[in-house]
Amino acid sequence: MSSRAKTTPSHMTAAEFDRLFEKVCNWGRWGPDDQLGTLNYITRDHIRAAATLVRTGRSVSMAVPINTVAGPDNPRPAFHYMVQAYDTQNTHTEPQFALDYLACEFHGDCHTHIDALCHIAYRGKLYNGKPMTAVTSRGPLSMDITTYANGIVGRGVLLDIPRLRGVKWLEPGEAVTGEELEEAEKAQDVRLREGDVLLFRTGHHRRRLELGPWNVGYDGEGKAGLHSDAMLMLHERRVAAFLPDGDGETVPSNVEGVAYPVHALQICAMGMAACDSLQFEELVKVCEEEKRWEFMVVAAPLRMPGGTGSLFNPIAIF
Amino acid sequence: MSSRAKTTPSHMTAAEFDRLFEKVCNWGRWGPDDQLGTLNYITRDHIRAAATLVRTGRSVSMAVPINTVAGPDNPRPAFHYMVQAYDTQNTHTEPQFALDYLACEFHGDCHTHIDALCHIAYRGKLYNGKPMTAVTSRGPLSMDITTYANGIVGRGVLLDIPRLRGVKWLEPGEAVTGEELEEAEKAQDVRLREGDVLLFRTGHHRRRLELGPWNVGYDGEGKAGLHSDAMLMLHERRVAAFLPDGDGETVPSNVEGVAYPVHALQICAMGMAACDSLQFEELVKVCEEEKRWEFMVVAAPLRMPGGTGSLFNPIAIF
Amino acid sequence: MSSRAKTTPSHMTAAEFDRLFEKVCNWGRWGPDDQLGTLNYITRDHIRAAATLVRTGRSVSMAVPINTVAGPDNPRPAFHYMVQAYDTQNTHTEPQFALDYLACEFHGDCHTHIDALCHIAYRGKLYNGKPMTAVTSRGPLSMDITTYANGIVGRGVLLDIPRLRGVKWLEPGEAVTGEELEEAEKAQDVRLREGDVLLFRTGHHRRRLELGPWNVGYDGEGKAGLHSDAMLMLHERRVAAFLPDGDGETVPSNVEGVAYPVHALQICAMGMAACDSLQFEELVKVCEEEKRWEFMVVAAPLRMPGGTGSLFNPIAIF
Amino acid sequence: MSSRAKTTPSHMTAAEFDRLFEKVCNWGRWGPDDQLGTLNYITRDHIRAAATLVRTGRSVSMAVPINTVAGPDNPRPAFHYMVQAYDTQNTHTEPQFALDYLACEFHGDCHTHIDALCHIAYRGKLYNGKPMTAVTSRGPLSMDITTYANGIVGRGVLLDIPRLRGVKWLEPGEAVTGEELEEAEKAQDVRLREGDVLLFRTGHHRRRLELGPWNVGYDGEGKAGLHSDAMLMLHERRVAAFLPDGDGETVPSNVEGVAYPVHALQICAMGMAACDSLQFEELVKVCEEEKRWEFMVVAAPLRMPGGTGSLFNPIAIF
Repeated sequence: MSSRAKTTPSHMTAAEFDRLFEKVCNWGRWGPDDQLGTLNYITRDHIRAAATLVRTGRSVSMAVPINTVAGPDNPRPAFHYMVQAYDTQNTHTEPQFALDYLACEFHGDCHTHIDALCHIAYRGKLYNGKPMTAVTSRGPLSMDITTYANGIVGRGVLLDIPRLRGVKWLEPGEAVTGEELEEAEKAQDVRLREGDVLLFRTGHHRRRLELGPWNVGYDGEGKAGLHSDAMLMLHERRVAAFLPDGDGETVPSNVEGVAYPVHALQICAMGMAACDSLQFEELVKVCEEEKRWEFMVVAAPLRMPGGTGSLFNPIAIF
Repeated sequence: MSSRAKTTPSHMTAAEFDRLFEKVCNWGRWGPDDQLGTLNYITRDHIRAAATLVRTGRSVSMAVPINTVAGPDNPRPAFHYMVQAYDTQNTHTEPQFALDYLACEFHGDCHTHIDALCHIAYRGKLYNGKPMTAVTSRGPLSMDITTYANGIVGRGVLLDIPRLRGVKWLEPGEAVTGEELEEAEKAQDVRLREGDVLLFRTGHHRRRLELGPWNVGYDGEGKAGLHSDAMLMLHERRVAAFLPDGDGETVPSNVEGVAYPVHALQICAMGMAACDSLQFEELVKVCEEEKRWEFMVVAAPLRMPGGTGSLFNPIAIF
Repeated sequence: MSSRAKTTPSHMTAAEFDRLFEKVCNWGRWGPDDQLGTLNYITRDHIRAAATLVRTGRSVSMAVPINTVAGPDNPRPAFHYMVQAYDTQNTHTEPQFALDYLACEFHGDCHTHIDALCHIAYRGKLYNGKPMTAVTSRGPLSMDITTYANGIVGRGVLLDIPRLRGVKWLEPGEAVTGEELEEAEKAQDVRLREGDVLLFRTGHHRRRLELGPWNVGYDGEGKAGLHSDAMLMLHERRVAAFLPDGDGETVPSNVEGVAYPVHALQICAMGMAACDSLQFEELVKVCEEEKRWEFMVVAAPLRMPGGTGSLFNPIAIF
Repeated sequence: MSSRAKTTPSHMTAAEFDRLFEKVCNWGRWGPDDQLGTLNYITRDHIRAAATLVRTGRSVSMAVPINTVAGPDNPRPAFHYMVQAYDTQNTHTEPQFALDYLACEFHGDCHTHIDALCHIAYRGKLYNGKPMTAVTSRGPLSMDITTYANGIVGRGVLLDIPRLRGVKWLEPGEAVTGEELEEAEKAQDVRLREGDVLLFRTGHHRRRLELGPWNVGYDGEGKAGLHSDAMLMLHERRVAAFLPDGDGETVPSNVEGVAYPVHALQICAMGMAACDSLQFEELVKVCEEEKRWEFMVVAAPLRMPGGTGSLFNPIAIF
């Protein structure tokens, strides 16, 4: 059982953060024109190996249903309307069609989505050192979400921190260190390997289901997530993609003057496929039944030119 | 080589159509409350077997890029806007975020999407005999797209009709019969089996790439696709899902007084997961390289309550 | 000074409500095909007379700024995005254009809007006895907002209830009777006449500015507004249009089993041009300076076919 | 009758254009912080005088109905959906509400709208010399459409060029000079005065109604409108606002290397309230009946913070 001490984020200065940024930085690693980042870790062998994890033929969604109700964690609710329903007076032979419409500002704490590598700038730079002017008011000129068009396909490993701690969920503001991730590996008898897709569970969505939504921002209660230091472990293990419930990092930040340091490290420094706001409540039941925390993952963003990210519905296959 | 005669749809009366509807009707087959339709054909064994098709570790998108430009086949272009780009005057340590927004009426001939079982009513009924009043102006009360939340995972088989015919694409208005599908099977040395995901290529998107968009509707040139009769073959083979380029059926219809008869048969009668407007131009290259037209398919609609369908990005894995 | 007793809505049974509905009902008054309702009261003479009220040449907006921030009274915030900003690297001669986009579900408590006569059905009927099937899932077939295309032009009279009561605003749940409207007339030395546009102030927006937003619904604190009985007075005076701050009626309703009875009476029974969520905070200052509560009003909804209402910016001219 | 020679735009070099820009430039005229531009010309006296033009009590819309159908001049159609229609099974006493939703990228050739002063940058500057960095990807920091919140109220003068020329409409590419505007004044016996609202008719919408839409852009047939030189006349006359059918200027441009020179002159140099895509087909009938081309105009943009313009429905009152 991890000690409570780990849950209190240790402080980090801006200078320490910049040193950490350097340590995990992948700029140039895959060439000056690379737009794939850590997805480069996933080789064909990894995909082939991932498919061998499909043993019982079950598939599970890791998406939260699209939410059209405003709330403290959903200030930009999705808009969903019918374009047309049926004319119930008409039962003639001509088929009728029901149509609908969706509008969404999807980078929110309630919308399951993936971020593109152009989504974050730090000190004026994007991943791989590209200038932030590569993103214009009409959209990004490079590293948009279509670089992930063929999807993220690989071995998924779920690290379930509430399970490790023996709690239903982590409380807002609690942080998970790299050390605790390793404890979770041991407790679950799995090990993150190069090219893996890390699914990171804090129980965020479980808490939301049971207690209702809360303000997850800096002006509210915050949320549980990774400690900045944990990025060192993800970097060393060469994790390819990061899919958390919540948005993956503890809020408030433990770094002086840097809000969302984990996002900056993941996306800007490491070039990692970072996702937001998944839910693992259906997945954990299957994991417990299957007694395993590894499976095949297929996660395909919409093929949206100019997207700084995308709504998506990532699937785990057992 | 299939004869040209097959490309001219034979006429069908409304009464003949209704008999065909009866023949392929799956109402009640999986119980009165079923909302999964032909996806019931996909068993865990099928999913497990599909994963064994992953031999070279390649993944390929089958989605058309989201299209924001109005045109004769895109009268409802998607709207994509930046919510914010970067403040290029600011290069301080605080990370900056680029955000965007998507709005789409996605049931169009240019948007790669999947239809929910509530999408079509015929003679006042939805699949499984449900009344069309189950779809209200606020959305469907049952059989919305969330019934497919766990995705379509299975064995994909591509039947490439232009390859069979030795042409670049089928011309608008040409029809493909069940017999010709069987010819394609033989030519490609594959066979559709129970629970398969059928990918049906007419070369629609290839034609669009080379000649530009055209009016695909009844008031225009129409499009190539399945002949209504072909649904008998799909029914007998117990195909689970249908993913065409174009929207899968020939326009104009060969059925008197019934526009879009294939859609009515697939969705309303058979309860089939029917999709629209995929593209296989990247896929066919991989198929030719791999010398096989079967692979694993993972296709996950957005988890959108009330959706009569969804944008999606279906993935083939070799 | 009106007594506190008036502020507590007296109870009304559903049967009493139906009798009130009959009393104020204008169905057939302007013929079976009428779609203008009480705007018929505004004759050319009224418009001409209204223009003579323009004596000092001042114009004042009565709209609340469009609100893109979700809150307890704004669960469907407007979405406003830039389509493009400027390319600041480019200072050549070619003019550049900044463009934007607005999306809004405008019938909300935070969006200044006007209702079309098709906006409300009571017991299955719309204004003038039209069946509610005249509104389909694709939009209304009659009495949409384009019937008001030429705008509401007339004599505006502001009745300022907080001024009468000597308070800054009315509290949520307080009700204003027809008798109190008459008291306000006397206190302000104006009188509502046939064809007038009634601007009705409860101080709703003043309260919002000073105390912040609150939940205005039945599950919240409610709002101040007219008592159902007041519609008798409006009916007898032949008021042409009703423009309140808030949405004009007290919540919760004082009628058993009828939420929003004032809306039903105004729109469905009377065929009145009813508006929502204006603000008079700039107007009252001008009124006090001018020492008059009558002026010209010009209020033009967007010319939106199928609109059940419209965003608008009504203008008072002194 | 104006000679055909006038309809062929004379050529202008970029240097000549810059001299013209200087001649009509109002930067600093109303102080360094001015955001109202030529609306400053409208004094209270002008508004009072405008109201005296209301003699017969008729009001007329000058807006084109909002257009949801894509076409060669409407590549970004408006999206209008019902949020809910009525439940026709329910005829109980509880009132029902029909609700809708509008989404629009309104700066198009088919959407009647007004431009804000921040809408155009020329050589890196906005009106009054403000830097174009005042418009960010999140919206303008100054001179947005809310500066016009109190509406444009004044004397409208319609100059009807097809009437002058004895044609139904001007053909695309034809240009109208200041001299021809003066001819129209004489023919109609009106004279533009300081603070007037100029309504400028080319018959654009009449042509569209009769011949259908056409491509109005540089890559199409273009449109009829003002010659750049005409801005001198508007400047000298101190016109306050400009409301054309079409978008007011001839396309293609007669200025070398400057597309949309009239827009640049009006908005950036002069600070004029410039509008787009009105229609005067209802108005001209009333003008002919009334035998006058002057009237009161009230035009109120939506009060939209950050708007670079707004949909609106301008009203003429006789």
